[in-house]
Formats: sequence, C-alpha cells, structure tokens
Amino acid sequence: MIRPIPPGTRDVLPDEMRELRAIQSALLGTFDAAGFSEVRTPTLEYADALELADRSSADSAYRFFDERGEMLALRTDMTIPIARLVADRFRDVDPPHRLSYFANAYRAVTPQRGELREFGQAGVELIGVPGPEGTAEVLELLDRSLTAVGLSESVIGLGEDGLWTSLLQDAGAGPETIEQSSELLVSHDLVGVERTLTESDELSPEAITEATRMIQLRGGPEVLAEAREFGGEGFAAALDSLTANYESISGRSIGRKVLIDLGMLREIGYYSGSTIEVYDEAVGDVIGGGGRYDDLMNRFGLDLPAAGFTLYIERIHKAQLERGNV
Amino acid sequence: MIRPIPPGTRDVLPDEMRELRAIQSALLGTFDAAGFSEVRTPTLEYADALELADRSSADSAYRFFDERGEMLALRTDMTIPIARLVADRFRDVDPPHRLSYFANAYRAVTPQRGELREFGQAGVELIGVPGPEGTAEVLELLDRSLTAVGLSESVIGLGEDGLWTSLLQDAGAGPETIEQSSELLVSHDLVGVERTLTESDELSPEAITEATRMIQLRGGPEVLAEAREFGGEGFAAALDSLTANYESISGRSIGRKVLIDLGMLREIGYYSGSTIEVYDEAVGDVIGGGGRYDDLMNRFGLDLPAAGFTLYIERIHKAQLERGNV
Repeated sequence: MIRPIPPGTRDVLPDEMRELRAIQSALLGTFDAAGFSEVRTPTLEYADALELADRSSADSAYRFFDERGEMLALRTDMTIPIARLVADRFRDVDPPHRLSYFANAYRAVTPQRGELREFGQAGVELIGVPGPEGTAEVLELLDRSLTAVGLSESVIGLGEDGLWTSLLQDAGAGPETIEQSSELLVSHDLVGVERTLTESDELSPEAITEATRMIQLRGGPEVLAEAREFGGEGFAAALDSLTANYESISGRSIGRKVLIDLGMLREIGYYSGSTIEVYDEAVGDVIGGGGRYDDLMNRFGLDLPAAGFTLYIERIHKAQLERGNV
Repeated sequence: MIRPIPPGTRDVLPDEMRELRAIQSALLGTFDAAGFSEVRTPTLEYADALELADRSSADSAYRFFDERGEMLALRTDMTIPIARLVADRFRDVDPPHRLSYFANAYRAVTPQRGELREFGQAGVELIGVPGPEGTAEVLELLDRSLTAVGLSESVIGLGEDGLWTSLLQDAGAGPETIEQSSELLVSHDLVGVERTLTESDELSPEAITEATRMIQLRGGPEVLAEAREFGGEGFAAALDSLTANYESISGRSIGRKVLIDLGMLREIGYYSGSTIEVYDEAVGDVIGGGGRYDDLMNRFGLDLPAAGFTLYIERIHKAQLERGNV
C-alpha cells in the first residue's frame, strides 16, 4: 500500500535535487567569498533555549520529551541556534564573527494552508558589527546572493522594527491596542488594523489616518520625507534610525532597488531596529527576510550587536522556476 | 548564561564544516558517476511507516503527536523512507532504480555511551537488481566511495543474514534461544552467546562448539571451506548464498580486501541475505554497513529486490582525521 507523508513535508526527486544542490553551492560559495564561514547546529535543541530567545518561535516548535525526561524541540530557524553557538564557542574570540548556514528548520504550522513544516534556509549572521554599517554589509551580501541564484529581479525591502509601536505610543494607544494591531499588521490585514485602532477609542481620527497611511508607504527616500510629518518624538527617533540605515546602504555597491517599506513588521520576536524582506513577484510571496537583533546575543550571555538574513530555499527555487532561471 | 545542547548532538564549527562538505562532495560525486541520483525525503515521517518497515527502527525513533493528533517520527535511516518513496513515486517507472542520499538520521539512543542522537548518513539504494549481481554492484561502489574519501585501508566485511539462525535451527535450538543469542551476537558478546546456548540445554556440546567457532570465522574463501563442515541443510543453503555472493564480488574490480565474516549479524530488522559492514582500525568501530533487503519494498506495496549501503559521516570523518587524510 502507498504510505502518505505528513502534509507540509516533501519528497524530492533527482531532477529537483540537482537544482537544490546548485542553489546550495551558489549561496555557500557567495557567503564564503564574502568571508562568512558555514557552521552547523543540532536539529534538536533544548526547548528552553528557544524560549529564552523568542516566545513565538518556541510556541511554533515541535516539542517532545527525550528518554531522560527533558523537553527537546526541533529548531525553528538557524539564527537562535547560532546565537547560542557563538555565545558558547566564540566567547573568547574577538568579534566580529561572520557565519553562514544552509540547513532545514521546522515549524508546527497549519499544513492545510500550504505552509511547510520542514523547509530549507540559507543565510548569514554578522555578529559584532553595530548599526547602519552592519546592516549595510548584510544587505550588500543579500543583493549578491540573490544575483548568484539568478534572481536579479527580486526586490529587497527595508523596514524598521520600532516604527509602528512608536507611532501608536506617540498617538496615545495602549499596550493591548498595540499588540492586537501589530499581529494584524504582521499578516498584512490593513482593514483589521484600521478597525482595531478605531474600536480602541484611544486615537484621534487624524492619528488613525496617519497610522493607516504610514503602513502603506513604500518606495524611495520620498517616503521618509512624507513620514517626517507623522507621530511624535518616539516615531522621529525610529525614522532617524531607518534613514541612517538607508543612507549607509546607499554608499554600498548594491545592484538592485532597495525599497523602503514603512509597513513592514516581521513575525519573529527577536528583531530590533532594521528589518529586511525579499519579495519576488514571480512567487507572490516573501522569499527571504532578516534584520538586526541587537538584544538576542545577550540572552545567551554575550552582549554583541548582530544582524543577518535568511533565504527560504523552496521559494527561491520556485522563483527560479517561474523566471526560467534554473 | 551558556546554554548546553542535548547530549548526543553537536555544533560544527567552520573548519570541520569544510571537511564535512568535502566528504559530501566526494561521495555524491562518486555515487553520481556510478549512475546513482540523489533524492531527499522528509525528516518527519508518519510513525506507522517506520513500524511497517522495521519494529526495532520504530522503537528507537523520536516520536511526537502533531497538531492533528497524528504520530510523527524522526527518520531513523534513509533506507526505509527511500523504499516508501520508490513504492509511491517510481511505481510506473521500469526498474532498476539507482538512488543516493546524504542526510541526517535520528535515534533515541543512550547518549551517555557516546552514541549520537543525530548523525549523518551517505549511501545508495539499488532497487530492482536481485541476488549476487546486485550485491556485487553495491559492493563495488562502496569500495570506490571509500577510496573517494581517502580511506583505502578500510576493510569491507561480507556476511549472510541467515547463517546464525539456520545453524541454531539445524542444531535443535528453540525460538527463544535464537532470539536471545542473536541479540548478544549483534553486540559482539561472544561469552554471552555461549552461555545462552549452554543454559538453554537444547544443543549438544558439539553443536555449541561448532556455533561459537562459526561466529569467529573471518577471512578469505578458506573460512567458507571450514564452515562446510557445520550445521545441516538450512545452514548449507545460507552458506551457498554467501559463497555465490562472494564469487560474484570476486569478478568485480574491487581495490581492497573483502573479508568474509560469518559472525556478522546486523541490528536492523529488514535485512535478508547479504549483509555488509565497513571497519576501520583507526576508528575501532564500524564506519558503514548495508546489505540486501529483498522483503522491504514489498511492505510498501512494490515487490522488488533491493540492496544498499550507508556510510556514517561522523565516523568517516574521524577515520580521515586519524589517518591524516583530511
């Protein structure tokens, strides 16, 4: 009898496997040429190490007890394990650390929606280079990596983690409204966001108009100028940070458009400051992401600023197929 | 604070990672040149697919319920998943099928003994070529693969799954004695084997002497001649099969000694006929194994003979380091 495989998992046959190995080779080669060396971590981590780093990652992890009664979890990404690894094994090595990976990660998603429970990720972590300089180095390598896998038309989006929260705080929104509307913004439900703000009765009609306008701003430096009119001091500081990052990137050799995206809010909880997303129209979905996570390393006992990106291998492959670039 | 990783798992730093990637490249290249194409299967399988194939594999698997209440398991090897894949996806393709893999597998072992819970495996499956011809093709490729990773001094052992059971049956042993002594033989506890046979009171002193002698026979064709004196009809048939396999191998271009090992008994339950083990003195351990599993495919609904081997990546790497061949 034919045995099915769990939904959200895949068998890969030889032709596709060759294409995936070619992606691996192109990306690891690009990372290596830029000075980022590959590491590997266990698929199985202690569940509390994931929890320490990010509650939402831990919640979506497959977990089970081992024979000694300890709770193990399948890693949900490579950023948390590499933060753990660096805090442990590179404690006595001078930063910065430039590391890369090509590995599978696992999430207990709803496979009915076509989400994968097991998926490939390739990316880098730049640990020990702060602020705009670090972000720009990561973004330049992201640009080169996309080119290496034939995706010259993919677009890099640059966001800033604190924009949404600070704009709402400046306008007088409470923590519950901020949390609820943030969840909706993560899933790009702009109608839901506006309804939440209205129903909260905490914001003026003008502030709601400003907020819903702000999260739809995407484009070049002109969106920064427009957003200057919005919010108060907190928002201005977040916008300053985004502006500095964008300026730093502009000094780099980046072969594609970097789109400023004021409505970007990433699901994972450990981001701080810059956030990055890669879109490809051919896939109609985000094919990669990243950003700064300056507070993550410290949770593992080593206080270093950090930034990185990850590319979702199955979507990179799909984009190649759609664009005929295999 | 430093977070530990679960015992039996490992972080791999850049220098070692480069060496592991070199092993991957050498082995996949060798498999490919011999016509074996790489496939990949999910890390997560339905637990009942493992059980269908081999009870002992299923018992050693990490298992957990998914969000739909179905029991998933981490794969314990690649042979069972590839049997499942071939029965599903290659049903309408003419055999033989030549497939390879380079992947991690997982077992709920006792990490205190230094066993790995997550370990790398590289190997091939030859599905649809029966008997000595199939076994010899696999063994020739095994020889070439070991050479490709610089292990020209590793020794290939050839065994036969039915030897032990048939010798004991011919001598009048009951199922319980056979099962108990087989478990001890798998773990090379020859003293325990002899005690079990003696305490059973089912075998004559001569039969016990013969049995304990047989499982210590390792060497060239002369051990086949010596074993001709042992057992009855069942044992003679198993020995004929081993002899035919050895003769078929002798006609192949194999660059190293193939040691006939009458005491070889492999732990995994799906073997039938030939069994293979690779030893390297530098490691003092088995660094690979395999054999025929002519009844495995049928459990997934496609009745095809099959054989294969797997190399244990961490031990291959250790052997390279010990021999200075990195």
